[in-house]
Amino acid sequence: MSGLKWLEAEKKLFRDGQTFNPHRLEWIADAEASVSTAVDVSATEALVKLSGTLRKVPVGIIGPREATEAQCALAEKLGAAFARHGLQLVCGGKNGVMEAACKGHAEFGGMPVGILPDEEWQAANPYVAIPIATGIGPARNALIARACVALVAVGGGVGTLSEMALGLQFNRLVLAMHDAPEVKGVDRYDNIDDVLERVALRLFTGK
Amino acid sequence: MSGLKWLEAEKKLFRDGQTFNPHRLEWIADAEASVSTAVDVSATEALVKLSGTLRKVPVGIIGPREATEAQCALAEKLGAAFARHGLQLVCGGKNGVMEAACKGHAEFGGMPVGILPDEEWQAANPYVAIPIATGIGPARNALIARACVALVAVGGGVGTLSEMALGLQFNRLVLAMHDAPEVKGVDRYDNIDDVLERVALRLFTGK
Amino acid sequence: MSGLKWLEAEKKLFRDGQTFNPHRLEWIADAEASVSTAVDVSATEALVKLSGTLRKVPVGIIGPREATEAQCALAEKLGAAFARHGLQLVCGGKNGVMEAACKGHAEFGGMPVGILPDEEWQAANPYVAIPIATGIGPARNALIARACVALVAVGGGVGTLSEMALGLQFNRLVLAMHDAPEVKGVDRYDNIDDVLERVALRLFTGK
Amino acid sequence: MSGLKWLEAEKKLFRDGQTFNPHRLEWIADAEASVSTAVDVSATEALVKLSGTLRKVPVGIIGPREATEAQCALAEKLGAAFARHGLQLVCGGKNGVMEAACKGHAEFGGMPVGILPDEEWQAANPYVAIPIATGIGPARNALIARACVALVAVGGGVGTLSEMALGLQFNRLVLAMHDAPEVKGVDRYDNIDDVLERVALRLFTGK
Repeated sequence: MSGLKWLEAEKKLFRDGQTFNPHRLEWIADAEASVSTAVDVSATEALVKLSGTLRKVPVGIIGPREATEAQCALAEKLGAAFARHGLQLVCGGKNGVMEAACKGHAEFGGMPVGILPDEEWQAANPYVAIPIATGIGPARNALIARACVALVAVGGGVGTLSEMALGLQFNRLVLAMHDAPEVKGVDRYDNIDDVLERVALRLFTGK
Repeated sequence: MSGLKWLEAEKKLFRDGQTFNPHRLEWIADAEASVSTAVDVSATEALVKLSGTLRKVPVGIIGPREATEAQCALAEKLGAAFARHGLQLVCGGKNGVMEAACKGHAEFGGMPVGILPDEEWQAANPYVAIPIATGIGPARNALIARACVALVAVGGGVGTLSEMALGLQFNRLVLAMHDAPEVKGVDRYDNIDDVLERVALRLFTGK
Repeated sequence: MSGLKWLEAEKKLFRDGQTFNPHRLEWIADAEASVSTAVDVSATEALVKLSGTLRKVPVGIIGPREATEAQCALAEKLGAAFARHGLQLVCGGKNGVMEAACKGHAEFGGMPVGILPDEEWQAANPYVAIPIATGIGPARNALIARACVALVAVGGGVGTLSEMALGLQFNRLVLAMHDAPEVKGVDRYDNIDDVLERVALRLFTGK
Repeated sequence: MSGLKWLEAEKKLFRDGQTFNPHRLEWIADAEASVSTAVDVSATEALVKLSGTLRKVPVGIIGPREATEAQCALAEKLGAAFARHGLQLVCGGKNGVMEAACKGHAEFGGMPVGILPDEEWQAANPYVAIPIATGIGPARNALIARACVALVAVGGGVGTLSEMALGLQFNRLVLAMHDAPEVKGVDRYDNIDDVLERVALRLFTGK
């Protein structure tokens, strides 16, 4: 139970006498919120309802450049799911898992942001819509971990591990899928729907 | 004369037997390019024609947090002009010139990216659509300079000066408007249309 | 067997007809190297012999700010051992394991370098001889991992884990002591002498 | 007049009933400071008196890689002057002005620190004693500006200009020598002695 309610007439999300501000991702006290005609929604359903008005706060998909077919297939589906639910994908902008995630995201109307280690934007994979060249090499992992409110690892070696550890250090939600490295404090998910609900819960409740 | 030609029937930009790939921002040899019905276009006109298909390569507006009304008014118009011409605004995401630029950009359908010095995205000004928190403080100036293919300074003190200098060091196009700092190698522009044409020329020809 | 030989008369380290250049940390072909009077030395012994002429290439001690007594006691001994063997300590410059390592290093004549997350050098622990304020927050972990040829973790949480992962990504030698996080590819050592020999071997042979 | 006094018997620097703590670079209230036998000293003289006990807070020499003979000659003298007065040189660790400064510093017993743009320490010039590889490219300019309490530019182009601007942004003392870029708020010095006195004054008084 997410505790979230949707009022279709006013296109508003609320809970406990608070209304959600989708641009600031904050709950505002709202005594007048009329609850009677509201319906319970999951965090994922709320995402879809607010899609279009929700601030484009980055959510990351991280993983290896040299990726297996299974990793890429999963990353592509995950990137697509992000786009269909209005989540803003940010990733490292290179190949493998990153490219697959961008491909899925772009195909469903998303505008994938790639934070590149390279000096020039041309180093981005072809599905990156907004390339951010940093020129600082793998130290850009710290930027990805900082920029995203949640990070989902799909497989990965030491680079991905560093992003997961930095994410935890920055109090980001960090989730593992498939064969992502084992890290204490990181829960593993088998299912994209569960990942979406968990990420949405973080956005709506900070949990 | 930009040397650019537009073929409306094929929605293609070309020059000298080359066709422009708007996603890769590259010219491709194309012997069959039928020139007869093409019309001369300025770089700015080409921007508008390709808007929607052009890769969202960042263009920066830089300037002070503590900005004058004149600086803010100009920055807002410039941000709006970027959006109307399909240019992707990237800025520092804070107040003053940055906020004004984002406001103008967002009002005309742009999705302003703010590369923040802060640790959390909430520190962005309210018009930033995609906030990128870096947590690295003013060192993020180097990231803005690197990420953008062109930087337009509207006023500014030492922070802006550092971005202009870094931009030159990274071979970015750096332009000055209004009372931006004097820097050797940086041309000053009085007019937004001229800035657009100059930036578009850089995108299309690398000049 | 390190394969290293020391010729006291010429104060030279050599092996297989090569002489070691302690400033460049490189082996130079040297056919005239007279082997007859040379003695076998361990890598640790070679360190001591060359102490004073060896380039001050950084070696890191990493670990938590909030450290146990056991972690601090070990870090202090390790820092001291680095100083007595001519190794240049680099660390994060803050408290806990970092401060203990600096204390031990400084007491034996070392000049600990602290690469600080903070904006001002005054944030260094009192034993840091050369404070390097970065102002980039925990992203400085990437700098420590890059700057050091070897990193020894003494305990640690997610911050230390990120440094270990980044160290592996940068092909640094990464060692774990005490209760440092488990990371695939990182060997665990119980004994400071073994750590010294392993680090020295990296410096002399790249292994 | 620096307002500084030296008491040889106690090897102490004081002023106005305060004693200077050379490790913390702070003035401590000290009512018992016996002034009668103290002598007035310049800030530069105080540097020499405290050399050996003064915390090794970085002072930077910045300038171009492709340097003129005149720039290199000046940088070498300046680096040497730093070493003779106990100042810790930090620079970019590459060639030209940086190498000349390191050469002068090392020849007079200094241990030059080089904060390198490169991924590996071997990219340092041969006079760097403690190489700090960052792997972040020219963005390391921001680190040099942050790490140093004072920066002296000897010539320079856009790279040096960015360091000067960042230094001002971080409230560092920034001085220009020879043909360093003109920057508002940066005083120009012709004379190494005057630079030393100015830098020492910053260390002792924060001015």
